[in-house]
Amino acid sequence: MGIRNLALCLIQIPTGGKIPQISSWNRITVSSKPECPGTESFEPIEYAEKAYTLMKSSLEKYNPDTILIERQRYRSAGGSAIQEWTVRVNMLESMFHAVLHTLAMERGYKVDVHSVSPRKVARLWLANVQEKLTARETKVAKIAVADRILNGQTVKVDIVDQAKDIADSFQNGNSSLKKFDDLADSLLQGLGWWKWHITRSIMMEEILGWEEVTTPEKRTKIIKEGVAKKQSRRLKKTKDLVIA
Amino acid sequence: MGIRNLALCLIQIPTGGKIPQISSWNRITVSSKPECPGTESFEPIEYAEKAYTLMKSSLEKYNPDTILIERQRYRSAGGSAIQEWTVRVNMLESMFHAVLHTLAMERGYKVDVHSVSPRKVARLWLANVQEKLTARETKVAKIAVADRILNGQTVKVDIVDQAKDIADSFQNGNSSLKKFDDLADSLLQGLGWWKWHITRSIMMEEILGWEEVTTPEKRTKIIKEGVAKKQSRRLKKTKDLVIA
Repeated sequence: MGIRNLALCLIQIPTGGKIPQISSWNRITVSSKPECPGTESFEPIEYAEKAYTLMKSSLEKYNPDTILIERQRYRSAGGSAIQEWTVRVNMLESMFHAVLHTLAMERGYKVDVHSVSPRKVARLWLANVQEKLTARETKVAKIAVADRILNGQTVKVDIVDQAKDIADSFQNGNSSLKKFDDLADSLLQGLGWWKWHITRSIMMEEILGWEEVTTPEKRTKIIKEGVAKKQSRRLKKTKDLVIA
Repeated sequence: MGIRNLALCLIQIPTGGKIPQISSWNRITVSSKPECPGTESFEPIEYAEKAYTLMKSSLEKYNPDTILIERQRYRSAGGSAIQEWTVRVNMLESMFHAVLHTLAMERGYKVDVHSVSPRKVARLWLANVQEKLTARETKVAKIAVADRILNGQTVKVDIVDQAKDIADSFQNGNSSLKKFDDLADSLLQGLGWWKWHITRSIMMEEILGWEEVTTPEKRTKIIKEGVAKKQSRRLKKTKDLVIA
């Protein structure tokens, strides 16, 4: 996610252990670079409008159950120019959260919003990389992981509808670092989230299943009901929108 | 304005050249320091809730025509700890703008939101100070200006209702730097805004009045109507809420 562009990825988590389906996957413009340098305004009033329009249209277009927003870093190594861009992208992230919460309160939308740490997601997908990577190397490595997913390795996903265009560009070797960085992030964050939830559900079942053995009959019944409820919740088909 | 506290000042600009009236003036808690250090969360999801509650209740309580929000700096000298707080207070500022814009769009509120540069406001009120002040000296100097205003010097204001409590604390010498810094800022930003608008209106009249002499009869009429319209707009009583 940046102040100029961000990626949106819509992941449908089907019921009954089927594979996730990516139906929409886009890189969209937040704010174009102006023709005359130095004429651009980064005033919060203008960005509030952009954030509102983007969140409102995303809710209306995708109607997601969950929205994952990439957590921005708040420390920047480097000079004051880098610091400025860090503050600006933090502004946009903050505004997305504020607009979504306000829309949820005002319109009664039932949407779960979460912040996703890109660092944790990178650790998940690049767990087998031993050496310390530079920022650029990490981007290249993440694009390679996304590419492997699209080729049916790593995890299986179903790419349908509009998302096919982006998947084709990835696989045709058109995956320039600049354009595909955010796209890869949105895919890996959404699928990372899904993997964590599967792992958590399995662990929950194991923990509760283990307790069943050691508890009296009545408690066992309650726990069994708890597991059943959690399973039915997990088995509900959901739509997750990732903003990265 | 900070992540812990901020000041709200409600200024009523009456019609017909009367003096501004301060009817509400408060320092409010955004987020208390937790008892156990290190347990605090600065996640955007939690701050989105705080920003929404604060803006919604301020709109409902004060019903302002204009809201002035103190513009936060985005460069921080100093170490990474200072940088973190700068990013956090920027987050809050961004969220206020985003919530207000969303509420305006969703509910049809007619409220003008502006960013006010604290640096320009300081230049206005401390124009006679020749030497370069440190951050701490600037705070002390601004509190002294607020104190002079409350004593009827500099500009005349009418302090009524709840705002009297704060004015009394200022004048009783209880104006500790920590507590009265934001309060002084909110007063000076609101009155600075009012002074700029008076100056602009006078200049507009002078410029348009000058054109009247040099233009043919028909254009004179249009300009006269323009002046009348501007005057009537300026003469409308308004309520300005300052967040600093």
